[in-house]
Amino acid sequence: MAITAEMVKELRTKTGAGMMDCKRALQETNGDMEKAIEYLREKGLAAAAKRAGRAAAEGVIEAYIHLGEKLGVLVEVNCETDFVARTPEFKEFARDIAMQVAAANPQYVSPDDIPQEVLDKEREILRAQTLNEGKPEKVVDRIVEGRLEKFREEVCLLEQPFIKDPEKKVKDLLTEKIARIGENIIIRRFVRFQLGETQG
Amino acid sequence: MAITAEMVKELRTKTGAGMMDCKRALQETNGDMEKAIEYLREKGLAAAAKRAGRAAAEGVIEAYIHLGEKLGVLVEVNCETDFVARTPEFKEFARDIAMQVAAANPQYVSPDDIPQEVLDKEREILRAQTLNEGKPEKVVDRIVEGRLEKFREEVCLLEQPFIKDPEKKVKDLLTEKIARIGENIIIRRFVRFQLGETQG
Repeated sequence: MAITAEMVKELRTKTGAGMMDCKRALQETNGDMEKAIEYLREKGLAAAAKRAGRAAAEGVIEAYIHLGEKLGVLVEVNCETDFVARTPEFKEFARDIAMQVAAANPQYVSPDDIPQEVLDKEREILRAQTLNEGKPEKVVDRIVEGRLEKFREEVCLLEQPFIKDPEKKVKDLLTEKIARIGENIIIRRFVRFQLGETQG
Repeated sequence: MAITAEMVKELRTKTGAGMMDCKRALQETNGDMEKAIEYLREKGLAAAAKRAGRAAAEGVIEAYIHLGEKLGVLVEVNCETDFVARTPEFKEFARDIAMQVAAANPQYVSPDDIPQEVLDKEREILRAQTLNEGKPEKVVDRIVEGRLEKFREEVCLLEQPFIKDPEKKVKDLLTEKIARIGENIIIRRFVRFQLGETQG
């Protein structure tokens, strides 16, 4: 495999190792970035594994702790420039998203993030539930798909009604902000801790 | 399998379903709690899957956002009573833990939480690194184990030097707090978001 200058540069960024060392590491590992990082670490040339995987992105990390400190949320919202990240409008958007997560407890950012096995499992449960309600076999599939759609809307942040204005979905709010601010904005990830809930 | 009153009670707490329904669900699923929850959901008798798994625990959820909003931490610290959770000393402890996570970037709460495959991989890398340094074969194992111990101390919150007083480890601080406050205290979980880092 040909080792390009871009690959060498990426490995340098990820490990902090010298250019020639990075090139050699990539040659030795046939261009496999992960293996090249390990190679450099084994040679004592990489700063640390944890530097790996960082990519440039602007934005903010925002927290929201609900009154009483029994519920907390952390979100990352990305934009293209630090200039935008510092604007009150962008910060307010990040804060709204954190409050949305606290109030509406989504499990995923978008429907694409739902693992297939979760959907399959949910479909199976909904199907049994629908049959148990005595719905005729021929309409069961349609009912199940409708309920699965509702499930998607409940568990995905972007599909949820926005808590401050339930007429629009969170994704509509996001589109508005992108149009007004003039930069792409991505709700990258969130986490929500509720006191005493079990993990996983 | 015998269905005990405790099992029925647990299932009730988790699903909000009636006592007789819970008993029947457990009988039908031979006492398997997860399957019993699914059974109740299929019958339309359980409130929602997400209620499952909650357990009683007191404490606080605390957040720390570093200046500039490029780094944020969320922690859950548990204690036995809400009375203690509301004390300034307990809250200060939770805040110190959040700052520790922000500053020292641990990956796990305690050494027991490091997955075996992570330790195996690290041992393998350290071994190759040590051999590459030209250390004699007969002392390599001892050096590797020493370095692995250092790795554990670096990546585990409880083993790290406390940032406000590096003479003691975080676990020593925890022990002190337990003794002073007179209740068991558990650092349950944490998450740390750094802007632009990739997930997983």
